[in-house]
Amino acid sequence: MAAFITFLSDFGLQDDFVGTCHGVIKRIAPEAEIIDITHGIPPQEVLQGALVLANTVPYMPGGIHLAVVDPGVGTSRRPLALRDESGRLYVGPDNGLLVPAADAMGGIAEAHEIANPAYALEEVSRTFHGRDLFSPAAAHLARGVALGDLGPPLAPDTLVRLDLPTPDISPERIRAIVLYVDRYGNVQLNLNTDHLEEVGIVPGTQVEIEIRGERYFAVAARTFADARPGDIILYEDAYENVALAISRGNVAEMFGARPGDRVQIRSDSL
Amino acid sequence: MAAFITFLSDFGLQDDFVGTCHGVIKRIAPEAEIIDITHGIPPQEVLQGALVLANTVPYMPGGIHLAVVDPGVGTSRRPLALRDESGRLYVGPDNGLLVPAADAMGGIAEAHEIANPAYALEEVSRTFHGRDLFSPAAAHLARGVALGDLGPPLAPDTLVRLDLPTPDISPERIRAIVLYVDRYGNVQLNLNTDHLEEVGIVPGTQVEIEIRGERYFAVAARTFADARPGDIILYEDAYENVALAISRGNVAEMFGARPGDRVQIRSDSL
Amino acid sequence: MAAFITFLSDFGLQDDFVGTCHGVIKRIAPEAEIIDITHGIPPQEVLQGALVLANTVPYMPGGIHLAVVDPGVGTSRRPLALRDESGRLYVGPDNGLLVPAADAMGGIAEAHEIANPAYALEEVSRTFHGRDLFSPAAAHLARGVALGDLGPPLAPDTLVRLDLPTPDISPERIRAIVLYVDRYGNVQLNLNTDHLEEVGIVPGTQVEIEIRGERYFAVAARTFADARPGDIILYEDAYENVALAISRGNVAEMFGARPGDRVQIRSDSL
Repeated sequence: MAAFITFLSDFGLQDDFVGTCHGVIKRIAPEAEIIDITHGIPPQEVLQGALVLANTVPYMPGGIHLAVVDPGVGTSRRPLALRDESGRLYVGPDNGLLVPAADAMGGIAEAHEIANPAYALEEVSRTFHGRDLFSPAAAHLARGVALGDLGPPLAPDTLVRLDLPTPDISPERIRAIVLYVDRYGNVQLNLNTDHLEEVGIVPGTQVEIEIRGERYFAVAARTFADARPGDIILYEDAYENVALAISRGNVAEMFGARPGDRVQIRSDSL
Repeated sequence: MAAFITFLSDFGLQDDFVGTCHGVIKRIAPEAEIIDITHGIPPQEVLQGALVLANTVPYMPGGIHLAVVDPGVGTSRRPLALRDESGRLYVGPDNGLLVPAADAMGGIAEAHEIANPAYALEEVSRTFHGRDLFSPAAAHLARGVALGDLGPPLAPDTLVRLDLPTPDISPERIRAIVLYVDRYGNVQLNLNTDHLEEVGIVPGTQVEIEIRGERYFAVAARTFADARPGDIILYEDAYENVALAISRGNVAEMFGARPGDRVQIRSDSL
Repeated sequence: MAAFITFLSDFGLQDDFVGTCHGVIKRIAPEAEIIDITHGIPPQEVLQGALVLANTVPYMPGGIHLAVVDPGVGTSRRPLALRDESGRLYVGPDNGLLVPAADAMGGIAEAHEIANPAYALEEVSRTFHGRDLFSPAAAHLARGVALGDLGPPLAPDTLVRLDLPTPDISPERIRAIVLYVDRYGNVQLNLNTDHLEEVGIVPGTQVEIEIRGERYFAVAARTFADARPGDIILYEDAYENVALAISRGNVAEMFGARPGDRVQIRSDSL
């Protein structure tokens, strides 16, 4: 069976960047099959890319996970290939993008700098390593090249790691931030249901939300169906993050919410 | 030969929803081949999803047609698998989305509720049945699981059906509505050429269009090439719907037209 | 091994146009593999489509290059199939779209009008030749149909060719135009580094840029890493065009730049 290469980036689909990488991969590994996770990561938002990759890799077939969100292209940031403890391979820049996914799959077993010109395009541009370096490396791995052939080993503890934003929780309130806003206007927070339970918020609890200087009432709920139309709900989303939504509406628009915004949550009974 | 799964949704391509469903399908049915019809259905617009699916299924290879526009996820709406009289299979929510396509292919031969947990992901979230329920069901059908193994049979006449908007036609005028606005600004109406002929509108007829309180002159034409630049034309589009367009321009922008808008058409000779 | 069909268009991904063409291809040539180069060419911008196709074909596996940016659909413009000197095949409208790519691959070896109804859909609409004419022709070529079976030969010098905009260079200044603005806001010009060298601009040179009536200072650089944050740089992009960018910012937004805009560049030392 052909090897799978999953592909996540901030390239968007308006330009040819994604299609060109597909072409490069297929020239090297015609039998490889590419699954595009998404190319809609906002330009150069490494943290969002890392979180989406970590959320989605468990749903992907085993294989090679190519990810490119690379504001440091052309600087001294290292190109990277990893193997996690479950045997999955990762290719991308050493800027923290790959690490949360590999950690979620058991941790990094092996890391190498991509340095062997035999596995890159003949000419490597200064601005498009997705095409010239990362796609070829992923394609050669799909053909069976060993990770160690790509370049010298790196100690996993030397890799760049992101500061994942953690919530600030006290008995009276949670201070969280907006991680992500999706197409439906659902607002994902850096919280899980354990955090809510710490302050006594369970399905049915009325809560007060403060965001961008405005206050809103919401209700903790298991699903949209538990709320009345127009109610703002606080719920566990499909990736086990806590999120805000409004039944049949766009709560991000109502809030004017954007990634990075601070959100304070209080149980209304306090 | 591998089975084809076509896939239509309102997921958009900015988030990972489509990519995650691809991953889920490929883990279960690595040999299945996915054709993305579109994921650009406006969020939760079941009627638009149903019309696009019915328009496009005849151009697709036989196989499984997965469609997810699902504002009722998490409520009691049933998950559904159908077979039409031509042998094609359909997977999606029981909200009317699948029925016009199956009807266009000869009608529904067999319907089942998707209820067998053996053919869903181990954990089914309350908000993402596309990933947890519909994609796995489609993938298992692609591997040869029988439709009846997915769950209990449903009488086709118990399925939810949409009210397809019909035009109001009198000898002096047609009252239609806007079904769809495409990338080029072409405005598709709930009309076909038989409707136009009922009121004597044939290629070459001058007509008056009223939309959003404004009146415009247009001409019925076979193709853009029959009109002068800047003329508004009323023509039969590639899916045999009547549509409005303007040669080398964007008529939807000029009109401010949106799906659901009312349009009145009069033959100018009246 | 299956034949590759690459596909570029201005169809966008919001509507079903791309998905429908995929379906049509797969019904005819189930084993063909489609690589979507991009469908984000702005509506009906033949020149941009031609430039992106010429830039990307060298990165694609050999096979059939299907391209549809077709403002003249329904007029007398001819449907076209080409072979270049390297053996690659091209399918699309005779409006100049295909020629720069074929020229970049050694020139046109053979051209045919697509005229044989055996290789089109049974009904050919007046507005969607991508679906009814070009996709079927590409699919039949992928199955091994000979180019000459599609229709009568055309003399290559009778094909429509685009005026590729050339820069106006004098010792004191370069007058260029904006060819393309990408997702990151990088502004591609109709220049290469030879043009810059003609007027003495090399990495490190300070330059003055005039666009939309405003003047900006910039520096010629090899890569983003050579500039300080906030500096505007003039650099050779990954397709060997000269482009303008700003480190970690969006220079097209700052300029208000759009394709077709005139840009004047002066070496600041003058």
